[in-house]
Amino acid sequence: MRMTILSPVADRLSKLAIELPSWAFGNSGTRFRVFPQRGVPRNPFEKVADAAQVHKHTGLAPTVALHIPWDRVEDYGALAKHAEENGVTLGTINSNTFQDEDYKLGSVTHSDDRIRQKAIDHHFECIDIMDQTGSRDLKIWLADGTNYPGQDDMRARQDRLADSLEKIYARLGGDQRMVLEYKFFEPAFYHTDVPDWGTSYAQVTALGPKAMVCLDTGHHAPGTNIEFIVMQLLRLGKLGAFDFNSRFYADDDLIVGAADPFQLFRILVEVIRGGGYAGPGTVFMLDQCHNIEDKIPGQIRSVLNVQEMTARALLVDRDALSAAQAVGDVLTANTILMDAFQTDVRPALAEWRASRGLPEDPMRAYADSGYAAGIVADRVGGTQAGWGA
Amino acid sequence: MRMTILSPVADRLSKLAIELPSWAFGNSGTRFRVFPQRGVPRNPFEKVADAAQVHKHTGLAPTVALHIPWDRVEDYGALAKHAEENGVTLGTINSNTFQDEDYKLGSVTHSDDRIRQKAIDHHFECIDIMDQTGSRDLKIWLADGTNYPGQDDMRARQDRLADSLEKIYARLGGDQRMVLEYKFFEPAFYHTDVPDWGTSYAQVTALGPKAMVCLDTGHHAPGTNIEFIVMQLLRLGKLGAFDFNSRFYADDDLIVGAADPFQLFRILVEVIRGGGYAGPGTVFMLDQCHNIEDKIPGQIRSVLNVQEMTARALLVDRDALSAAQAVGDVLTANTILMDAFQTDVRPALAEWRASRGLPEDPMRAYADSGYAAGIVADRVGGTQAGWGA
Amino acid sequence: MRMTILSPVADRLSKLAIELPSWAFGNSGTRFRVFPQRGVPRNPFEKVADAAQVHKHTGLAPTVALHIPWDRVEDYGALAKHAEENGVTLGTINSNTFQDEDYKLGSVTHSDDRIRQKAIDHHFECIDIMDQTGSRDLKIWLADGTNYPGQDDMRARQDRLADSLEKIYARLGGDQRMVLEYKFFEPAFYHTDVPDWGTSYAQVTALGPKAMVCLDTGHHAPGTNIEFIVMQLLRLGKLGAFDFNSRFYADDDLIVGAADPFQLFRILVEVIRGGGYAGPGTVFMLDQCHNIEDKIPGQIRSVLNVQEMTARALLVDRDALSAAQAVGDVLTANTILMDAFQTDVRPALAEWRASRGLPEDPMRAYADSGYAAGIVADRVGGTQAGWGA
Amino acid sequence: MRMTILSPVADRLSKLAIELPSWAFGNSGTRFRVFPQRGVPRNPFEKVADAAQVHKHTGLAPTVALHIPWDRVEDYGALAKHAEENGVTLGTINSNTFQDEDYKLGSVTHSDDRIRQKAIDHHFECIDIMDQTGSRDLKIWLADGTNYPGQDDMRARQDRLADSLEKIYARLGGDQRMVLEYKFFEPAFYHTDVPDWGTSYAQVTALGPKAMVCLDTGHHAPGTNIEFIVMQLLRLGKLGAFDFNSRFYADDDLIVGAADPFQLFRILVEVIRGGGYAGPGTVFMLDQCHNIEDKIPGQIRSVLNVQEMTARALLVDRDALSAAQAVGDVLTANTILMDAFQTDVRPALAEWRASRGLPEDPMRAYADSGYAAGIVADRVGGTQAGWGA
Repeated sequence: MRMTILSPVADRLSKLAIELPSWAFGNSGTRFRVFPQRGVPRNPFEKVADAAQVHKHTGLAPTVALHIPWDRVEDYGALAKHAEENGVTLGTINSNTFQDEDYKLGSVTHSDDRIRQKAIDHHFECIDIMDQTGSRDLKIWLADGTNYPGQDDMRARQDRLADSLEKIYARLGGDQRMVLEYKFFEPAFYHTDVPDWGTSYAQVTALGPKAMVCLDTGHHAPGTNIEFIVMQLLRLGKLGAFDFNSRFYADDDLIVGAADPFQLFRILVEVIRGGGYAGPGTVFMLDQCHNIEDKIPGQIRSVLNVQEMTARALLVDRDALSAAQAVGDVLTANTILMDAFQTDVRPALAEWRASRGLPEDPMRAYADSGYAAGIVADRVGGTQAGWGA
Repeated sequence: MRMTILSPVADRLSKLAIELPSWAFGNSGTRFRVFPQRGVPRNPFEKVADAAQVHKHTGLAPTVALHIPWDRVEDYGALAKHAEENGVTLGTINSNTFQDEDYKLGSVTHSDDRIRQKAIDHHFECIDIMDQTGSRDLKIWLADGTNYPGQDDMRARQDRLADSLEKIYARLGGDQRMVLEYKFFEPAFYHTDVPDWGTSYAQVTALGPKAMVCLDTGHHAPGTNIEFIVMQLLRLGKLGAFDFNSRFYADDDLIVGAADPFQLFRILVEVIRGGGYAGPGTVFMLDQCHNIEDKIPGQIRSVLNVQEMTARALLVDRDALSAAQAVGDVLTANTILMDAFQTDVRPALAEWRASRGLPEDPMRAYADSGYAAGIVADRVGGTQAGWGA
Repeated sequence: MRMTILSPVADRLSKLAIELPSWAFGNSGTRFRVFPQRGVPRNPFEKVADAAQVHKHTGLAPTVALHIPWDRVEDYGALAKHAEENGVTLGTINSNTFQDEDYKLGSVTHSDDRIRQKAIDHHFECIDIMDQTGSRDLKIWLADGTNYPGQDDMRARQDRLADSLEKIYARLGGDQRMVLEYKFFEPAFYHTDVPDWGTSYAQVTALGPKAMVCLDTGHHAPGTNIEFIVMQLLRLGKLGAFDFNSRFYADDDLIVGAADPFQLFRILVEVIRGGGYAGPGTVFMLDQCHNIEDKIPGQIRSVLNVQEMTARALLVDRDALSAAQAVGDVLTANTILMDAFQTDVRPALAEWRASRGLPEDPMRAYADSGYAAGIVADRVGGTQAGWGA
Repeated sequence: MRMTILSPVADRLSKLAIELPSWAFGNSGTRFRVFPQRGVPRNPFEKVADAAQVHKHTGLAPTVALHIPWDRVEDYGALAKHAEENGVTLGTINSNTFQDEDYKLGSVTHSDDRIRQKAIDHHFECIDIMDQTGSRDLKIWLADGTNYPGQDDMRARQDRLADSLEKIYARLGGDQRMVLEYKFFEPAFYHTDVPDWGTSYAQVTALGPKAMVCLDTGHHAPGTNIEFIVMQLLRLGKLGAFDFNSRFYADDDLIVGAADPFQLFRILVEVIRGGGYAGPGTVFMLDQCHNIEDKIPGQIRSVLNVQEMTARALLVDRDALSAAQAVGDVLTANTILMDAFQTDVRPALAEWRASRGLPEDPMRAYADSGYAAGIVADRVGGTQAGWGA
């Protein structure tokens, strides 16, 4: 009975797919401390196995993003096969140009041609891996920037960025794409070389149709209206991917939906409104750190939060909303939006899951599965995965 | 002797020109109160006369921007002549689509075609005035936006914005330009239709070469690196104008340079670095409110602040800076920039002024001129100019 | 049936009482424009009548706060009687020291003893009015502050503030209280004399037990954890009153709960946790501006939002929460809190209202009542109430 | 001749003393990467030696703060003697309750009595060390807080905090003090247990006269007027210490004065105004991370920045300022303050240094000293000091 509220949107809801980051299952923390957790994976195979648990219990997370070099393996075919055996597939490849000594002052923007080429070559390696894993998207997040005014020439760096991206873009295969992430600050504290959507948009537009913007929900200045940017990038045809997470202050990388569920709802409303939902164009990814909470349940909670808000966003009565907007009825239009947000879709989603052979309560199902105890027992010795910062 | 520090940059420094806003001489305030001041102009002729005082004592402010309808007059030729007689000329024309009852929920973005056309027609009127005043630039700042999620369809508004701008753009004469300002928030409190440089850039790029971005230094989210945007817009060839002012919190519209002189310096460094200084492409304007301080001295202080920071920015030892940057010497590069900022250019600027027949101390010269007492005595009766909010 | 979810908390829920601000029914706007609305009250009697409509349809708003001098009348007894006839009573008296010419640079902090005494005297007048209206609380919000560094001596102003408050405090009757509001910025743009809870707390602590802090939810720096302050002030015994509203950017004064309903929930959770709910100590007030939406429905929506979030906050399973917290189960503890937030209490609240002889849907009931058309027809001529800025 | 501008303030200027943090000389970085530097100290003795270099070349940094357990040694007397031999003395002792596994969810606020006692005991150890080093101040910065709403009971944590501090306070010797630092966020991302000056003030006031507030200039919400807090804490007699650094975004821990030199100036103006300069009450400390720049020169630059801004702040013409403030002359008052800020004191400070047997250019003197090359050559093997995150 409860499911009736979702009936009109059930088909669309079933198209929701969220990519998980392999690194969410490794240890993470702050500059003050990384608290290790028991049972944490020691290699990419174990990370993929953990990610597969999320999909197993929710049906929402069919792909796993890799991070190079953190997820370098001898045989990517074997990793892909391992993923398939676990019920998932490999997704986006993320590059890393922020941990090598050479990159201390920059990577693809560096004034030293040797270092810049090294960073470009790293992306070539990533594309080679994409060829092996069958991944479509190369995601580039850059730590490049400066800490002090005058430290470097921002304009020259921007030009070198454009040149480096052009070289990487040229290497992309016919069906491959590049998504360029922007970030307000951190780890650079004066300027970052891709600080805002405008910069990412200008850079990817100069490259061509296979280059898109990646929007991380935690990478904006305080107060930024993120759903406006979602709307704008979809309008401009350039919203390639989301990195979902949530924040109260900076790039806190908390569980998506934990800090401001209404904001997540508004974002999803604009995704749906702008045609970015469940198509191939815009990938939903998570990018989070479970510093103090358990990692697998943290990811389960995250995809459920996205699902709940997606369901609510799909429930918005568009016709009524348009009618109220057309006559400038501010309060009614707002109320119609809020009606969808206020709807408690959890019981219906439980039924929806049951009807698909999934557990009604994924959090409990995982807890009851014994998987957590198993990995704690099994994963003895070796080095736990982490950022290696 | 002191002037020697400015000798190498004296030629470039003499090219500085700052456009004053006519409305800075009228009453202004906050939503809580507009405190009227004695001697405030009652019409555009008196505003121009006041603006001319700033130029008379500083040699820095040769043009005056008008705001329509606040500065509507019967005979724009007469106003232009009046300006010339006072030693200045008329500059940018600013439109106003935020005070008519019809614009309560939007102007060029309004869903009602009648209201939208009315807003477009207002810009046509502004262009007609530009033809009469000889103004080159039409500046468009929009109060358009919404206060509540769901109130209106942001995407449809953006499309209507594009359509309206296209119609206005088509009306521009061969040498005329449009500059589109962006603003983070206020008076709309949920979303604004042109909230950031990315949106303004995407919109003006779609229009053509005569459309440019206007950057108001008070219109950004907290912490935004404004000089980065300056760099980027110059790099993209789209920085048409500045609205200078300063802020501690929101769009406080304080005297430029009053809140963060180092930021003003960094902005000017990027302007010079990017080729935006003293060319025809990028106009320097003020946009400030002198709510509690005297208005004419407030403007004099403002243009002097810009001049002082311009002088410092011109003094940056570019060769030494580039050399330090090239070898990644963070501290030395920063120190070279700071050396220019720390230099006290005020004595040299006083001599510079004296050598050009200007008062060494413009603030004192104005105070001694008796002009303030004169306008208080003369401007009796009538209605003081203001925003008419 | 639905009401069963509220049964355990029905008694406590029925104790919710929210004070309405008389000025919310008058015209308001931004520094750019006040858009007048038809039917707006022209005097305090009409404001009270409008406020009474909110209580009539919701049962949530039994008192009306006045603002002096905006609500000055000849006979406060008559106004109180008028309120009672309309089913409400008069509440907090708000002083105004930000619109007189003398207060341009300060009121109770002014260095000119004459002006400072004038501001103190104004508060004496407010206390006299409280004696007549039977109001308990004097609410003091100060616009005092400066726009420019150096403009005045912040320390001396703080000392004068303490002295002025002491004089006002001494005049309070035995059962009367003073609540001192703090505000981050606006209309002062460099410093405000009571910018944060710490300052308000230090000042009222120096006065004595009848002085308390007033927390306006829109008066904080971006990112501030407001519920922490609620917790702290209740812990310190000094949370005297709330001014509810909501904001995306600054002091936007939007409908409470409109911008971040989860924040409102968290605040109410802490109020209940800290013993601040429904006792005499902590008054719930609204302080909002309905610039573009209809005012009476805007207030109805506001009190309903507070009621809905209060219901959810009361539903938090405290025992389960404490148990999860005690064992450091981060995810479970968070989930228990979210469970209450996710619960859709609206159907139950509709039944709750019906059981008390109130309309199930107050927004519709008001719309159907014809009151809006009546005031538009009746209130012809005269001057509409507003801030008179 | 240049020194004449400093003559009137030379005596006061010579009283400037800045405490250096031992950890500034070890490796530091972000959660993304700690880039090690060659020559970094491997133990507290080498850190003290490096810190002494700063004092040797500037005469500004006579004391070194220690951090326990990072600076644990067998024999604190030996370390103190080593410091003296290097021309400095040991200063404040900093506790660390954020890196032990037990402290993952809290330390002095933890609900588990065992862990809480462990944290208290750690502070007892710090006090014991103070007894040996002769340090007066115990500085407490807490990483305690939560990442998710509901994770823990903020009120109960606050009460446990009060209780823990009371126990630690009771252990202080007669001449010892405790300074309690507050921080807006990080590493906790939902709430911190001491987020603002108000909380620190309320806590230390409850303890007694030996407990004071420590203000870290990077620990505030965006836009916070820090000099106001300085004024207020001095007025309340509770400003025990500064942690100087600078930031553009969050707790960036950049070189003090690098991000906003005018803010540093304003802070020092208030320190001097409020009697906090060069007395025993308010300690000046640095707390910075030199992630990408050289550490010793980074510290030299920092103390010079403080000295330069102190000199400017001392130069403020108080009489003229008071006179302008008294008559409400906003522009003149601001100009008088800015006159001091604009003054280039560097040449005079160079002479001032020379007259005291110090190098005119400490940055160059250090560079020329060969010390950097020496430590790179000498410090081979061992483990470099760092945060051990």
